[in-house]
Amino acid sequence: MNYPWPQPGTPLEQVATPMPVIDEERLATNIARAQAYCNSHGKRFRPHIKTHKMAAVARQQIEAGAIGLNCQKVTEAEAFADAGFDDILITYNILGPTKLARLKALNDRVGKLAVVADSETTVDGLASTFGEDRPLTVLVECDTGAKRCGVQTPQAAVALAEKIAAAPALRFGGIMTYPAVGGAEQVERFMAETMKLLSDKGIDCPVRSSGGSPDLFAAHLVPSATEHRAGTYVYNDRSMVRAGHCTTDDLAMQILATVVSRPAPDRAVLDCGSKALTSDLLGFTDYGTIVDYAGAQIVSLSEEHAVIDLQGCQVPFAEIGQVVKIIPNHTCVVTNLFDRIVFHRDGFVTRVEKVDARGTVW
Amino acid sequence: MNYPWPQPGTPLEQVATPMPVIDEERLATNIARAQAYCNSHGKRFRPHIKTHKMAAVARQQIEAGAIGLNCQKVTEAEAFADAGFDDILITYNILGPTKLARLKALNDRVGKLAVVADSETTVDGLASTFGEDRPLTVLVECDTGAKRCGVQTPQAAVALAEKIAAAPALRFGGIMTYPAVGGAEQVERFMAETMKLLSDKGIDCPVRSSGGSPDLFAAHLVPSATEHRAGTYVYNDRSMVRAGHCTTDDLAMQILATVVSRPAPDRAVLDCGSKALTSDLLGFTDYGTIVDYAGAQIVSLSEEHAVIDLQGCQVPFAEIGQVVKIIPNHTCVVTNLFDRIVFHRDGFVTRVEKVDARGTVW
Repeated sequence: MNYPWPQPGTPLEQVATPMPVIDEERLATNIARAQAYCNSHGKRFRPHIKTHKMAAVARQQIEAGAIGLNCQKVTEAEAFADAGFDDILITYNILGPTKLARLKALNDRVGKLAVVADSETTVDGLASTFGEDRPLTVLVECDTGAKRCGVQTPQAAVALAEKIAAAPALRFGGIMTYPAVGGAEQVERFMAETMKLLSDKGIDCPVRSSGGSPDLFAAHLVPSATEHRAGTYVYNDRSMVRAGHCTTDDLAMQILATVVSRPAPDRAVLDCGSKALTSDLLGFTDYGTIVDYAGAQIVSLSEEHAVIDLQGCQVPFAEIGQVVKIIPNHTCVVTNLFDRIVFHRDGFVTRVEKVDARGTVW
Repeated sequence: MNYPWPQPGTPLEQVATPMPVIDEERLATNIARAQAYCNSHGKRFRPHIKTHKMAAVARQQIEAGAIGLNCQKVTEAEAFADAGFDDILITYNILGPTKLARLKALNDRVGKLAVVADSETTVDGLASTFGEDRPLTVLVECDTGAKRCGVQTPQAAVALAEKIAAAPALRFGGIMTYPAVGGAEQVERFMAETMKLLSDKGIDCPVRSSGGSPDLFAAHLVPSATEHRAGTYVYNDRSMVRAGHCTTDDLAMQILATVVSRPAPDRAVLDCGSKALTSDLLGFTDYGTIVDYAGAQIVSLSEEHAVIDLQGCQVPFAEIGQVVKIIPNHTCVVTNLFDRIVFHRDGFVTRVEKVDARGTVW
């Protein structure tokens, strides 16, 4: 995209919209706070790259003390391996010949690579792909209440761990769960019971990985966990504020948008549609908060338009051509829509960073 | 993205998922049907590129008889100008120095370029950017009931048309509306009244452009319109079927996805999340239809996972590693998430096409 990316020092008002912008100060504070929390509780911290998808921000996280990265897909991990990262956990069942072949190639060049599995089918595929000369570390994914992937019981976790441990080309790395929907107690109970059962069988369980930004600052309530993974904490978003996991002062991402139409007294239209904000509602009834215009509601999106209902707006709304700032419902999905994202300090551009893992769904 | 794109002849079962795939036969039929309809009613047809975002498909549309393309943003139009398209209507208020400068550069190299405006501010910006040596054609956007952008009355349309006609560097090109939410009669009434008022003032109104795939085959009910614009018709989607605008036989796009987990008897997980399907519900309560598995519901998405509720599934669901096909709620937003998209005939890959205008939000 031959887009006129702004030079450092450019005021944000001159950045062509729509564009997500990241506040350097808040970003640095979010990274430091999470790491300090994990350090103080003796937890290793493994940031999930899904929120920023950028080598540049991942480097900041590693420099702050994170032990490695969490990716979701093989192509995501490839993007970060290309950028030199050497400790990557892929929290996904990798299946099918294309992806297994690429995972094998990745394992040959990443110092510490691990994946998860929650089924015999996944373990069989891994076991027949890898070789004893370069074994792959596999953790068992456990469902501790989120009802997404994961084995359902500690007994099932142990059965799968035994299968992994018995495969010559695989190493059983531990257990992994995401997120703590049922509360920290439920995660702790699942982990502790699994560890006891494994111990009874003489199987070591070196890594117990918990995850989720909503659970980040409650990670100490899961004493069995050795590491925690989190992504959204790095930017935060409207859904994190609503849930009480951060305040509006911790929001590092805003989306700049221009008023392109004021067709009626009670309506404005912005140039950010679902191709900029996405349709993620996350339980809200509107598509983000417009900063400084309390009561103005983003009631509908088409691909390139956001329609704003001004009926409840408590101040005169911005005029055509003026730029407004939006707090997105969900940051991670916004990042995925842009090739590059603009960073700033106090409203002046500091850098423009490539979204290295944009569009990596494989 | 260093992704192993499949070679022609590859069976779809071997394509790494998630991946949207386009049925060549249905694509060609959709293009031919729309063009034949417009031809038979004496309407010019101007496809909106938002749905495919591809020069390759746009070429098929032009070869079938379309007069030119409809884009929404300057960078979208640039992508199609780069590919050699020479008649482009940008149905958007272009504002701000960056975009105006690029629009001017685009006008210097595209034979027939036009934009729309719905405010004096937009017209002022255009008038002060362009020169008499290379004037820009501007249509007035009219709100005929959709409550997005557009002037609210024929009188307001005429006032803005007069302003455009009076600017030495601009040419008044006509009027444009999207979509016909209030029905064809409302569009016709607005257009006819505006034309009469313009005629009374001696202002020619050469183009009257109506739009929307839902209104495509009702375009003959707006006799005043000279051209119709539509995007979604080229692939169609679940929302078009529900509204009765097409049948399931007209659905050219499916998304291939792999079952990655069967954690519980009533639950499966696919490898297509909101990064593949998007969160667009368009009034549905779930995120697409899984072909051949009636009653299996895509009840929730995270970025890389689709959680399927199998409680109502009427047949045994696919096992881990098997590929299923999904009809998306909304095609256009899916296209925007992929760098390239796979085409097939009878289940065998025919070509892989670049999504030339992916991510062009400016």
